Amino acid sequence: MTHAIPVAVLGASGRMGSEAVRAIEAAEDLQLVAALGRADSLQDLVASGAQVVVDLTVPDSTEQNVAFAVEHGIHAVVGTTGWDAERLGRLGNLLDQHPGVGVLIAPNFALGSVLATAFAARAARYFESVELIELHHPDKVDAPSGTAERTAALIAEARRDAGVPASPDATRTARDGARGCDIDGVRVHSVRLRGLVAHQEVLFGGAGEQLTIRHDSFHRESFMPGVLLGVREVAGHPGLTVGLDGYLDLQA
Amino acid sequence: MTHAIPVAVLGASGRMGSEAVRAIEAAEDLQLVAALGRADSLQDLVASGAQVVVDLTVPDSTEQNVAFAVEHGIHAVVGTTGWDAERLGRLGNLLDQHPGVGVLIAPNFALGSVLATAFAARAARYFESVELIELHHPDKVDAPSGTAERTAALIAEARRDAGVPASPDATRTARDGARGCDIDGVRVHSVRLRGLVAHQEVLFGGAGEQLTIRHDSFHRESFMPGVLLGVREVAGHPGLTVGLDGYLDLQA
Amino acid sequence: MTHAIPVAVLGASGRMGSEAVRAIEAAEDLQLVAALGRADSLQDLVASGAQVVVDLTVPDSTEQNVAFAVEHGIHAVVGTTGWDAERLGRLGNLLDQHPGVGVLIAPNFALGSVLATAFAARAARYFESVELIELHHPDKVDAPSGTAERTAALIAEARRDAGVPASPDATRTARDGARGCDIDGVRVHSVRLRGLVAHQEVLFGGAGEQLTIRHDSFHRESFMPGVLLGVREVAGHPGLTVGLDGYLDLQA
Amino acid sequence: MTHAIPVAVLGASGRMGSEAVRAIEAAEDLQLVAALGRADSLQDLVASGAQVVVDLTVPDSTEQNVAFAVEHGIHAVVGTTGWDAERLGRLGNLLDQHPGVGVLIAPNFALGSVLATAFAARAARYFESVELIELHHPDKVDAPSGTAERTAALIAEARRDAGVPASPDATRTARDGARGCDIDGVRVHSVRLRGLVAHQEVLFGGAGEQLTIRHDSFHRESFMPGVLLGVREVAGHPGLTVGLDGYLDLQA
Repeated sequence: MTHAIPVAVLGASGRMGSEAVRAIEAAEDLQLVAALGRADSLQDLVASGAQVVVDLTVPDSTEQNVAFAVEHGIHAVVGTTGWDAERLGRLGNLLDQHPGVGVLIAPNFALGSVLATAFAARAARYFESVELIELHHPDKVDAPSGTAERTAALIAEARRDAGVPASPDATRTARDGARGCDIDGVRVHSVRLRGLVAHQEVLFGGAGEQLTIRHDSFHRESFMPGVLLGVREVAGHPGLTVGLDGYLDLQA
Repeated sequence: MTHAIPVAVLGASGRMGSEAVRAIEAAEDLQLVAALGRADSLQDLVASGAQVVVDLTVPDSTEQNVAFAVEHGIHAVVGTTGWDAERLGRLGNLLDQHPGVGVLIAPNFALGSVLATAFAARAARYFESVELIELHHPDKVDAPSGTAERTAALIAEARRDAGVPASPDATRTARDGARGCDIDGVRVHSVRLRGLVAHQEVLFGGAGEQLTIRHDSFHRESFMPGVLLGVREVAGHPGLTVGLDGYLDLQA
Repeated sequence: MTHAIPVAVLGASGRMGSEAVRAIEAAEDLQLVAALGRADSLQDLVASGAQVVVDLTVPDSTEQNVAFAVEHGIHAVVGTTGWDAERLGRLGNLLDQHPGVGVLIAPNFALGSVLATAFAARAARYFESVELIELHHPDKVDAPSGTAERTAALIAEARRDAGVPASPDATRTARDGARGCDIDGVRVHSVRLRGLVAHQEVLFGGAGEQLTIRHDSFHRESFMPGVLLGVREVAGHPGLTVGLDGYLDLQA
Repeated sequence: MTHAIPVAVLGASGRMGSEAVRAIEAAEDLQLVAALGRADSLQDLVASGAQVVVDLTVPDSTEQNVAFAVEHGIHAVVGTTGWDAERLGRLGNLLDQHPGVGVLIAPNFALGSVLATAFAARAARYFESVELIELHHPDKVDAPSGTAERTAALIAEARRDAGVPASPDATRTARDGARGCDIDGVRVHSVRLRGLVAHQEVLFGGAGEQLTIRHDSFHRESFMPGVLLGVREVAGHPGLTVGLDGYLDLQA
């Protein structure tokens, strides 16, 4: 048998971090060598012998965590938010100086969600109409969701590139809000319902047919297969990758 | 075998009317005795010996058509729109003078749609959250649909009567329209998509569960079972009935 | 304010029982007066002053628990399985001797599921076709689910009573199992999928239209609103009631 | 403006053929130069000046139609069934001798259906569980549908190639047929319902999440965008292509 990959988790006591700890411990081909929290020193990371670090901390500390890892030759899989263009630029430069090291910055680790968005972008040019419905628990404070915004923007871009006109819409009289919000010409509807977690449906319509791509996230554990896939693949993808879809084989 | 019921159709050359003619001809227990258009005289209705008339004409003529039928002792099943409170009041008075005659005014003859609305109204008080999505072809000029407006109003009324508070919603920042339109406190979302006809989904959510009641109308012929049910039952329901649900057995 | 209803839970340390304890403690109009386990004496039930007892124990002990409660004038809400016709008969006789006491035996406390089944039974006679799909987690050992069996049987009964013929099916060549199993003439399909909990969809089809009634149970807590409704209503329903739908107002 | 492509239709009086005639006439960049039926001679095809022929005839004649077209330098888009391995082999050999000519043999022209199958095959390796539900009108004589068979086989192949084990299933007691039929280890369920046309749903499940890819074919016209895409692209794809997905850009 091949040796298990030694993995460290930063932010190990958070909600995502503790799920990650559990998932890595349960994976036979991975070995958890450090589970570090806010109080621990990054030096422990080096001491642990980790080849891959999973960063699930907070926007304030993620950049310095990842920079530290890269400088010590440790690959990084990052689920923390807050990576704007400026931060990504600095990280890219740093990685140029450490050519063998890989970093994955993933805003979304749910495989199903990442695939759904990738498929929606590919399908976008082939249909006359497209709309998007996202459904979440009623404690969510923003609408639409970030995933819906990204998906709609990718769909709009694909249609623009292929010269597809706007979805037809003969509406002349409408109540305020009935037709949803408009993201780059794609209508997006946000449902909030007790009992739900995070769900999204992309609806494509053409003459006599409909294609629906739906993703349901029932539980936070849905992120773990994506985290593990990132951990296993990051060493094989030196440099910076943004988005888990960069690691997926969608060409088959 | 019992004799077939003699039935006349007014507006027989319209889209709905011609479907009704076909459906009545195909029904063994009904006999089409007259298929009248704009140019025909209402006297032909009497001459035909019809016991039931199906009015699928236009808002301008429906009131006088129905009054004529009632005055001649002919039961009427009416799918024409335009029956406001004033017209219904006049018809009610007329029916008081003709106690054996029945009239059904039905804004919607799709059995599935009528049942879906009735079920949604009954379920409304048992869930913390409710939202409504209606989906139609993109040539529709109004949003939301009339059926969605009615369904939402019935749901809102049932919740108010049972003292159920508003659906929870923590949204603080939203794009314009993302959360749909508000009908008596019920959020309604209108999707327009090529390939669709007329569809509606009512979503109820409670702790850990969801109840969804969905109706799909794929084709105009979906109205015909409801028309036939009306024709068969109208003589047994003297007086004025508004809504096909008045003829359905929902208590079983 | 009215006084809170004093409630006891039997089987309080089981999975359902501990959820019930939490739910009763969180309800302002209820007061948890006893949470009893296997080791406790039923005498504690009397000592606690409970007016209602919730039995979430095991088939072996539920009958004697309920009988004890009835004999001491305590109403009972029962989620334990194992109540066959013989046990129900004995309980009915006992309740005849204690006319003011109410007992609810509910095989299913999820309000949405109970409503979905009730609606499906009412809709059954109005459609040419009906099929049922139930979807569960892959650790379930039986197929189809008990809820699907009950729902299909009720649908079949309603169609038989209304003289509706069998759903049309022109299938001549089929792989084994493709068309599902047959319960009283209703086709039922069982899906097993990681990530799911308990879900059911009843599909009704007629000319040009479809009615779908779907229930999703995402979490065990979905049973609690039904348990609380039972606790609040049981004193108002003396005698034996089987099925939570007996307490729901479906006529509105 | 570029010149319109001259197109001929074989089988022009059949159901699919007459839809194709209509669709080609309505397309500004295409020009219908011949609409041939059973009684017409293939020489008319040459006389018409067609650059592309659409074959929507019958299994008995399609091979000689296509061979004739290839020998006369006319590209062919073929929707007729009956192309087994032997026929495809002969056609491949013929095309080797006519290197500039393209032929597309497409068992399915619905873009949404082709995309759904392609996406399902790509997603297959990333989920623990997969099942397939296909839903059709009740006059269909076989179960499951050919599209479901192909989709399941592609999913099974993708999972085998990636070393994914069988979908978990703890079922110990089941009614006959409840768990569907088994196609290469993928469970497939066939629903037959009045009102439906042709629909398919692929359900993928993983820890805490579900991905659903659904296609609805509401009407035969749904095949036309695929036919037109084939007509426009066939000249740019010399040689033999089997399946419309060979012309779709799924890599973007």
